[in-house]
Amino acid sequence: MQVLPPALEQLVEQLARLPGIGKKTATRLALNILRRPQAQAQELSRALAMLHQSIRLCANCFTFSETDPCAICGNSRRNSSVVCVVEQSADLLAIEKTASFQGVYHVLHGVLAPIDGIGPDELKIKELRQRVVAGGITEIIIATSSTVPGEATASYLLDLLQKEPVNLSRIACGIPMGMDIKYADKYTLARAIERRYSPA
Amino acid sequence: MQVLPPALEQLVEQLARLPGIGKKTATRLALNILRRPQAQAQELSRALAMLHQSIRLCANCFTFSETDPCAICGNSRRNSSVVCVVEQSADLLAIEKTASFQGVYHVLHGVLAPIDGIGPDELKIKELRQRVVAGGITEIIIATSSTVPGEATASYLLDLLQKEPVNLSRIACGIPMGMDIKYADKYTLARAIERRYSPA
Repeated sequence: MQVLPPALEQLVEQLARLPGIGKKTATRLALNILRRPQAQAQELSRALAMLHQSIRLCANCFTFSETDPCAICGNSRRNSSVVCVVEQSADLLAIEKTASFQGVYHVLHGVLAPIDGIGPDELKIKELRQRVVAGGITEIIIATSSTVPGEATASYLLDLLQKEPVNLSRIACGIPMGMDIKYADKYTLARAIERRYSPA
Repeated sequence: MQVLPPALEQLVEQLARLPGIGKKTATRLALNILRRPQAQAQELSRALAMLHQSIRLCANCFTFSETDPCAICGNSRRNSSVVCVVEQSADLLAIEKTASFQGVYHVLHGVLAPIDGIGPDELKIKELRQRVVAGGITEIIIATSSTVPGEATASYLLDLLQKEPVNLSRIACGIPMGMDIKYADKYTLARAIERRYSPA
């Protein structure tokens, strides 16, 4: 069996680290890149090299942004008294696509997963509490996924914040059970936001 | 609707140019890369930047290689009198994985597609003819895919080479019709090579 040329093998290995991309897909992608003009590979290379340098976390909501505050937190037309708490920036983007939410966000950067060593201190939960304590927030919508860790994280946050003077809500059960919210279609997701309820 | 930060949007656009990767998958990949350490993005970036610089075409068989001749053409244990003609380097890799072929290759870099302006001059067909005319080749196995353009290319090559003093064969019809050979499982592909036949 012939091995790939080292430079190709190197790219295949790097591509295969991405989620949902196995060795076979990585090989197909690498060969495709090789068949195209070098300029295209260079452009992709530059975009990757620049990524972390250009992007930081918004100090208010912790989403990925090139500016601080981010475009949403810095937008005076957004209602900064309503905060939607999401797991990841990808979830924020999915909600933005519905165009049905005019408030601001708080990105947790994950969900509670004790088995993997991810407790409250590994997420932006302390920072959420600080935003609430600082005042100016009237409602918190918890929009973690309806997966087991997503629900556990929602319960934890509801417990944590129940004594604070804010309305707490959870997005409605309209998204199918077990579905990661970033894959929900935008209509279902919009309805889930409209029909949010306050847990007893 | 909020737009992605420009550096992220740039990466998403570049990733979405890859085959089989749409805007949604590209966004998911880009956000995943962003969540990981910067070093990983840099490694992928470097692998891409180095790719075209390190890899050239073997001057004999035209496969992608860091050396010229490639590892197969330069291997004295391979039977250089039997040449397997494939569409792409990916097909060569698929055949190598079967470990059932001891000859050498010739990579056409495509198939005839008149509608897309790809005629014999756009492929490495002249070069194949030159190898045959130069002598030392006793058999040519045409292993283009069993797709319509693959079959058309095979017919063209059989016509072109029929007056040359070489045995011509086509890999056996063991791979399912319409399937691109690089996706065939290696057992089917090995059998197809074993049972190659000479067209009348």
